[in-house]
Amino acid sequence: MPHKTLYRDRDGAVILDQTQLPYRVAHRRLERLEDAADAIRRMQVRGAPLIGATAACGVALAMQADAGDAALAQALAVLGETRPTAVNLHWALARMRAALAALPAADRVGRAWSEFDAICAEDIATNAAIGRHGLELIGRAAARRGDRPVRVMTHCNAGWLATLGHGTALAPIYAARRAGMPLEVWVSETRPRNQGLLTSWELREDGVAHRLIADNAAGLLLARGEVDLVITGADRVAANGDTANKVGTYLKALAARDNGVPFYVAAPRSTIDLACPSGADIPIEERDGDEVRHLHGMRGGVPDAIAIASPEVAVANPAFDVTPARLISAIVTETGITPPDRLAEAAEGKAR
Amino acid sequence: MPHKTLYRDRDGAVILDQTQLPYRVAHRRLERLEDAADAIRRMQVRGAPLIGATAACGVALAMQADAGDAALAQALAVLGETRPTAVNLHWALARMRAALAALPAADRVGRAWSEFDAICAEDIATNAAIGRHGLELIGRAAARRGDRPVRVMTHCNAGWLATLGHGTALAPIYAARRAGMPLEVWVSETRPRNQGLLTSWELREDGVAHRLIADNAAGLLLARGEVDLVITGADRVAANGDTANKVGTYLKALAARDNGVPFYVAAPRSTIDLACPSGADIPIEERDGDEVRHLHGMRGGVPDAIAIASPEVAVANPAFDVTPARLISAIVTETGITPPDRLAEAAEGKAR
Repeated sequence: MPHKTLYRDRDGAVILDQTQLPYRVAHRRLERLEDAADAIRRMQVRGAPLIGATAACGVALAMQADAGDAALAQALAVLGETRPTAVNLHWALARMRAALAALPAADRVGRAWSEFDAICAEDIATNAAIGRHGLELIGRAAARRGDRPVRVMTHCNAGWLATLGHGTALAPIYAARRAGMPLEVWVSETRPRNQGLLTSWELREDGVAHRLIADNAAGLLLARGEVDLVITGADRVAANGDTANKVGTYLKALAARDNGVPFYVAAPRSTIDLACPSGADIPIEERDGDEVRHLHGMRGGVPDAIAIASPEVAVANPAFDVTPARLISAIVTETGITPPDRLAEAAEGKAR
Repeated sequence: MPHKTLYRDRDGAVILDQTQLPYRVAHRRLERLEDAADAIRRMQVRGAPLIGATAACGVALAMQADAGDAALAQALAVLGETRPTAVNLHWALARMRAALAALPAADRVGRAWSEFDAICAEDIATNAAIGRHGLELIGRAAARRGDRPVRVMTHCNAGWLATLGHGTALAPIYAARRAGMPLEVWVSETRPRNQGLLTSWELREDGVAHRLIADNAAGLLLARGEVDLVITGADRVAANGDTANKVGTYLKALAARDNGVPFYVAAPRSTIDLACPSGADIPIEERDGDEVRHLHGMRGGVPDAIAIASPEVAVANPAFDVTPARLISAIVTETGITPPDRLAEAAEGKAR
């Protein structure tokens, strides 16, 4: 991890501004509750685990300004409304509430920061465990492949930019790389926000061979036998195993199934929402149509944006879709590799 | 059709330069064989039927310069190598060869142009017939929908910009519009070349309600029941019904099947290649990686391009994929609505 995604800095915090990547490495300082909420809304931080940690940070920042009950309730409410789909946000806020609500106001600032630190440290450990378990799945594919590199397809970015550690979906890839296992990664650009470019940037920094593709190309590559396994992250996994992840994930899962290729989801247990019965109960965020009408990139060596459609063109822009459990080969969490229909046990730490 | 895609002009021809659309309406004059070949290669003309007609035009232009046997063979060879997937190109060239080869050189120029005119006139008639037959399919969906607008999803552009007439996949939509049937169209942007923007532009000119989406959003919309039918064009249909079309079509067909939504292919009979047994035998064009690394759009009111990835990022860029016949509900040609496993009869004009 050449850059930290989020870290404490004196009485504030600093984030890597991911809306500028991979074109420019820029940081933003968070000093107040509203800074954290704004950074989440604008996707300067993104990825379910990192959103959760940033929300926890936002609570700590709020407590520094005012540690009263009303301010705590307000912070939890404001942050809880920033983005609807990733459940880690609500998990982190529930955890902050549980840690702080019963404390006297005077003790809340210190406790908020220590809880934030714990969330970050646990995420790093969780990523490492997901990497170990996921490596086993890549190893199985490698055994089938013989001497040729294992070809892994992913979607969006579920790497170190989405977490505090080595990522979720990419953690097994980094583990395989460290184990000296030859592999190649198919990286989908992931319109409309192009988080695939973040994945490409990450993999390049780590020297992992990869090729960028248009999202549309995934089906052909799977049909041609050019993919050995698909692995993505998740924003919310329902109790029945249905999984919300970046829009387009469902299409890849369908194509994987149609061609007999395993499709895995990698996520911390905090992404599993046992209170949510099925995918139909997961709220799907609809984002601004300008994300489709515009594209960010480089022009003449500087970051810039270009319009591909005028404001009069009507747009639908759902940010996530739901992959039914029946299309998921297994879910990789820090406790192990779990069939999607055995999540309740995994959530209690009994998997494997 | 507010603009002609291709027309004769004195001893040359004029094309609408589609690489500039929807940002600017620009034309290019074709005077020599190489102009026509270059326009096809660079996708200034695109869409299987229009590629075929432009190739026929290229032969006529070549004959004007030199109507000898060697020049004819050379023209057929050069044009035949411009793009590999769309079979209409080869169909049109075979037709020009059949018309010209046995003629004395002195008669070839006139005959070439008259054959080109016939190809164009037939394409217009074919489009109209596809529109009539496809309207029946939209009518069936409308009967199920009651008073609500029928929601049609398409991919890429198979409208008037892809043909000489009203298009293939869009012809039924225009027919429904003329019949006063309320409908809405889901338009996928179709990365990497964004031909969905051509479809959006066409539909807007014709006043057809539509919404632009990222390609990734198709699965969610189908799963939510927001699509009544999917209809796309085709670049080559194999004898067994497997269909090559713009990359990403297969993913939409999978999602349509997974949600019980009919998936139709609309194409002239000249797109059916009975000499090609199955989809595995269709050559898939791999195009330049810069199509993925760059995007064309508007900036400050003028057409411009932006880079989203540096030249060092490896790219795979297949331009088409193959939708297996088992995912196709029916193929709509000028002779009627045909199940994909009865194409041989349809190709002989016996369908319906």
